[in-house]
Amino acid sequence: MKHGGDLLSYENYYEGELIDFSSNINPLGMPKGLEKVLIDNLTELEAYPDIKYRKLKKSVGKYLGCEEDLVLVGNGAVDLIDSFTKMAKRVLVTTPSFSEYEERALAHGKDVEKMPYKDDFTIDLESIADIVKKDDLLILGNPNNPTGLRIDEKTLIKIYQIVKSKQANLVLDEAFFEFAPIDYDSINIFKEYNYENIGIIRAATKFFALPGLRLGYGCTSRVLKEKVETFQMPWSVNCFADLAGRYIFDQKDYIKKSKQYIEKERNYLLEKLDEIEVIRPYQTHTNYILIKLLNLDEEYVFNFLLKRGIIVRKCSNFKALDSNHIRVAIKDRKNNMKLVKELINLDQGRNINEE
Amino acid sequence: MKHGGDLLSYENYYEGELIDFSSNINPLGMPKGLEKVLIDNLTELEAYPDIKYRKLKKSVGKYLGCEEDLVLVGNGAVDLIDSFTKMAKRVLVTTPSFSEYEERALAHGKDVEKMPYKDDFTIDLESIADIVKKDDLLILGNPNNPTGLRIDEKTLIKIYQIVKSKQANLVLDEAFFEFAPIDYDSINIFKEYNYENIGIIRAATKFFALPGLRLGYGCTSRVLKEKVETFQMPWSVNCFADLAGRYIFDQKDYIKKSKQYIEKERNYLLEKLDEIEVIRPYQTHTNYILIKLLNLDEEYVFNFLLKRGIIVRKCSNFKALDSNHIRVAIKDRKNNMKLVKELINLDQGRNINEE
Repeated sequence: MKHGGDLLSYENYYEGELIDFSSNINPLGMPKGLEKVLIDNLTELEAYPDIKYRKLKKSVGKYLGCEEDLVLVGNGAVDLIDSFTKMAKRVLVTTPSFSEYEERALAHGKDVEKMPYKDDFTIDLESIADIVKKDDLLILGNPNNPTGLRIDEKTLIKIYQIVKSKQANLVLDEAFFEFAPIDYDSINIFKEYNYENIGIIRAATKFFALPGLRLGYGCTSRVLKEKVETFQMPWSVNCFADLAGRYIFDQKDYIKKSKQYIEKERNYLLEKLDEIEVIRPYQTHTNYILIKLLNLDEEYVFNFLLKRGIIVRKCSNFKALDSNHIRVAIKDRKNNMKLVKELINLDQGRNINEE
Repeated sequence: MKHGGDLLSYENYYEGELIDFSSNINPLGMPKGLEKVLIDNLTELEAYPDIKYRKLKKSVGKYLGCEEDLVLVGNGAVDLIDSFTKMAKRVLVTTPSFSEYEERALAHGKDVEKMPYKDDFTIDLESIADIVKKDDLLILGNPNNPTGLRIDEKTLIKIYQIVKSKQANLVLDEAFFEFAPIDYDSINIFKEYNYENIGIIRAATKFFALPGLRLGYGCTSRVLKEKVETFQMPWSVNCFADLAGRYIFDQKDYIKKSKQYIEKERNYLLEKLDEIEVIRPYQTHTNYILIKLLNLDEEYVFNFLLKRGIIVRKCSNFKALDSNHIRVAIKDRKNNMKLVKELINLDQGRNINEE
């Protein structure tokens, strides 16, 4: 499984409904009221979306707290990341991180340089200073997938200054930003720099639980925005994503409740997983947890859980992770309890077929 | 106006609802029943689309009459055209044709060679034989936009044989295919060649009246399919486009009725426009008509009609067309009559502000 959420490939392996811990989206589901907005506007299907996405960009600008003239929108975050890689001379990715950074760069025939995280999954500033060169693009997940860690503010500013001083560009993939108890806002931090040499990219996919919608958005400098938009296809954002974007960012109660919910479940799940001897959960700032398997292989654990109706994300196809890691999403209490229960069964050495 | 359908830019110029003749979509609107399908499946928003689009491709394969293993799907036809341009060494476009062929090629830093149509907008086979070289991509609209003409079967096969013999590739953009009284089916013609060196691309946008949905699809060889899919982004087709594609292609009554409707209105509109002295409509196989303005400028005619609540497509930004052409969509009888009426007013030399 290269990406999470590929349930269809596994539906014959379990009788009953699979619980998908491989896809890390907000367990509260999409914002209330969105369905009505879409239903009331289904005839928008019959018109082209505004090719300039004027209303959508206004909405995003207000939500992010940046000028709407600096807003980017795309067919998921990956559409925007794709355009940034296209303009780079070389693309630098940390490992492990979301595989699409490298894939998009390779699709455009770019050289890719990989920079491992330190053992604790924090960033090695020195290696960044050594490696980054003019016209490079450095892509960082903030928080990073699958590790779950965000970059602390001081480090982030240092990284930016290194990248900028080398006339390279930095992309922060903040698809999981709202889940994280981050004590800074990157949009705000880089405002004083007019977002020169930086693109900050977020998405409706994870936090607003809308992976089917395909809405990515972000903020960058005037210069970079013009380049990105040259690379993007016309009408890359469909009419529902356009409509939804003009609604969801105003849902303050939903946003607040979601953050509180994830924090509570994250604490619960981390505490419970910590008690299980055969696994070691990593610290996380997001809505998923990277888990180290002690003397167990991802394939065995995957199949063990699949037999019990649970899909988790195997991690060996993340560069720099071997086959003893899995990633699990943080879901609602009932499902989280189910995951804990089955991992306890695993811990107690139950046979793979034993109920 | 670079593309049709940009109503938002003009809504302050006319009190009342603008009639959009610039956007050439099926005047019958989307297939009946589609709204219900989408409403009944709104929760699909909360899941990633199948990354392999298995069900959708099966549907498309059945509709096109080609193996589902050879089916491509994308975020509108332009997504697929984009991937084909990316793999080309050089991109050859006819003029006038849809501007995005060239735009996508340029976005990937490709050289673009332009080949004018003959005066009657048919293809100059000799110039194709002269120009096409190994690894080139020749893109042809079939029917072509904005001229409205389809390629006749014999010519099409000759073009293909030239392109193939040179180890180049041919893309047929058949976004308007179903509107045309075409006496052959390109999917069927090239089956015996296993679609080697050819990609045939269609879309739900025009015929199924779903420009907001963003669903392009097509058929190509195994070799080219693999390349195209390497270039495409994951989940490039949103969940509604996925759902709709599994419904609309089965709507046989709608498809039949739409074809009949367009044929009737096309005949009506061509006949009426032919009677107007100050314009000269070109022959067309599609749901739009290219019109030559005699001693009139597109800007004047555009504004004249805008004042009367009608938006048409100016054509001077199509390469090889000067500022004395407009393109109009074929709409329902009431709107077609309104267009005819206002063009008669134009013909009678009314002042731009005269009601």
